[in-house]
Amino acid sequence: MPENSLRDFTNDHSALALNTATLGHNVEGQGAGWSPEQVIDACAGRGYGAITWWRREIDERAVEIGERTRAAGLEVCGLCRSPFLTGPLAPPSRRDVLDDFHASIDMAAELGAACLTICVGGVIEGSHSMRDSLKEVASIVAEVAPVASAANVRLALEPLNPVYGGNRSCLTTVRDAVDMIEAIDHPALALAIDVYHVWWDLSLGVELKCAGVGRIAGYHLCDWLADTSDVLLDRGMMGDGVADLKHIRHSVEAAGYNGFCEVEIFSAGNWWKRDPGEVLDICVERFRTVC
Amino acid sequence: MPENSLRDFTNDHSALALNTATLGHNVEGQGAGWSPEQVIDACAGRGYGAITWWRREIDERAVEIGERTRAAGLEVCGLCRSPFLTGPLAPPSRRDVLDDFHASIDMAAELGAACLTICVGGVIEGSHSMRDSLKEVASIVAEVAPVASAANVRLALEPLNPVYGGNRSCLTTVRDAVDMIEAIDHPALALAIDVYHVWWDLSLGVELKCAGVGRIAGYHLCDWLADTSDVLLDRGMMGDGVADLKHIRHSVEAAGYNGFCEVEIFSAGNWWKRDPGEVLDICVERFRTVC
Repeated sequence: MPENSLRDFTNDHSALALNTATLGHNVEGQGAGWSPEQVIDACAGRGYGAITWWRREIDERAVEIGERTRAAGLEVCGLCRSPFLTGPLAPPSRRDVLDDFHASIDMAAELGAACLTICVGGVIEGSHSMRDSLKEVASIVAEVAPVASAANVRLALEPLNPVYGGNRSCLTTVRDAVDMIEAIDHPALALAIDVYHVWWDLSLGVELKCAGVGRIAGYHLCDWLADTSDVLLDRGMMGDGVADLKHIRHSVEAAGYNGFCEVEIFSAGNWWKRDPGEVLDICVERFRTVC
Repeated sequence: MPENSLRDFTNDHSALALNTATLGHNVEGQGAGWSPEQVIDACAGRGYGAITWWRREIDERAVEIGERTRAAGLEVCGLCRSPFLTGPLAPPSRRDVLDDFHASIDMAAELGAACLTICVGGVIEGSHSMRDSLKEVASIVAEVAPVASAANVRLALEPLNPVYGGNRSCLTTVRDAVDMIEAIDHPALALAIDVYHVWWDLSLGVELKCAGVGRIAGYHLCDWLADTSDVLLDRGMMGDGVADLKHIRHSVEAAGYNGFCEVEIFSAGNWWKRDPGEVLDICVERFRTVC
């Protein structure tokens, strides 16, 4: 696919989605602090195409919020996220992991979300082995995949930047994610590709081609700031960093993806402190110009 | 190569080298604060095989410190490091980069160091392109390689963890480093493999095999802490983190490397605060047991 055949967003941002993390998850006292209804209205009013919610915002209101989102003309493109499956931040037992994994699938189904994001968790404590940890991850994902299928929810495996390899994701490359999906070989499994996590990987295009058409369930936008001060909460707005956004999107679209592009910016020191309406406006402008 | 054919360090740590960063670079007021002579004596007394120095410790005394190191029965296995070649932390012009690059090669030659470590620098400001930045890096390295050859100094290209991709190294994977070395195709060029930078890369063994025998000029030890609090100055002691140290060394040795294993631990909050003699003792013990 030639680079000039990218989808043209210059005058059309209907493919733009908001991941609510961009507004600080709308948690009281952090970021916008908006209700789901306020988020929906603000996105609909600006012509966004979809919203990805976080479980903490939904609580018992999954069906209601899903319907409210669609009534405003938006889709629910995703739910964040499964529990960590392994490592120091995972629930204490495999049974606890599975219970919470099932709960997150149920919520995604009630919400009508197209996919559930999976951050797999870090290296199993005491194992000193990313390989063994990935085997345990694969075992859990394989067990849960049929449950997700039955609920009509895709599981979007998200490889995270290697900086999170120890505690948040022993799955650190698209290559490893594709390998895992091929090994489990279940149609519920897909990839989530996030600029923050893959921007440095020059083999991205090749790896995504290996994944085959239809294997990407989400594409997440932000930027990597050259002077990143906090690897968790200092993501950049598109255009403010060093990522080659058009080239990355080209790799994603060349692999057959034509779905939403979801802005997900964790930024405690900058974007979460700004007026949320301004943030949403700037996302639109940057989406049209630099993504 | 079967994993059980690794070199056996259980009762022999003559392959152990100290990178002086482990003692806080011996800069006044940080870490040991030791003179080069104190470092040499402490390493020689404990049976270390070599030392890698930093330029800031050497100043005008390269010949003298090199001779003093060898007189104590140690080798100088490396010098850290070239200037950053690109990105926000590089000298202001290509001319300035080349001048300082040449100065670092001269110092390595005077010191009698086997290699000079190269951290290539980050993405060129305003370029949003890791690819273009790597092209500029390759152009500078190709220009300098004959100078290094003439001085009998190998240039050890060190791919850094992707977390440094923005400002310290647009070279983030062994794969990209091997590609660059093959493209430039000059015998002065080699790889430095550092556990901190590559521990997450499950394709390491395959990539190193592609590099061919004799292409590794340095192997650096530390560990990746699961809860790394600072990506620059919170490295772990071998065994305290999540890296699969034996597996990584297997990949390095299977590619033909049988040189020094150099402990390089930047640790402002822990190891730099301890008694330097204790740190050196613990390095020996961990080297014999977990590396």
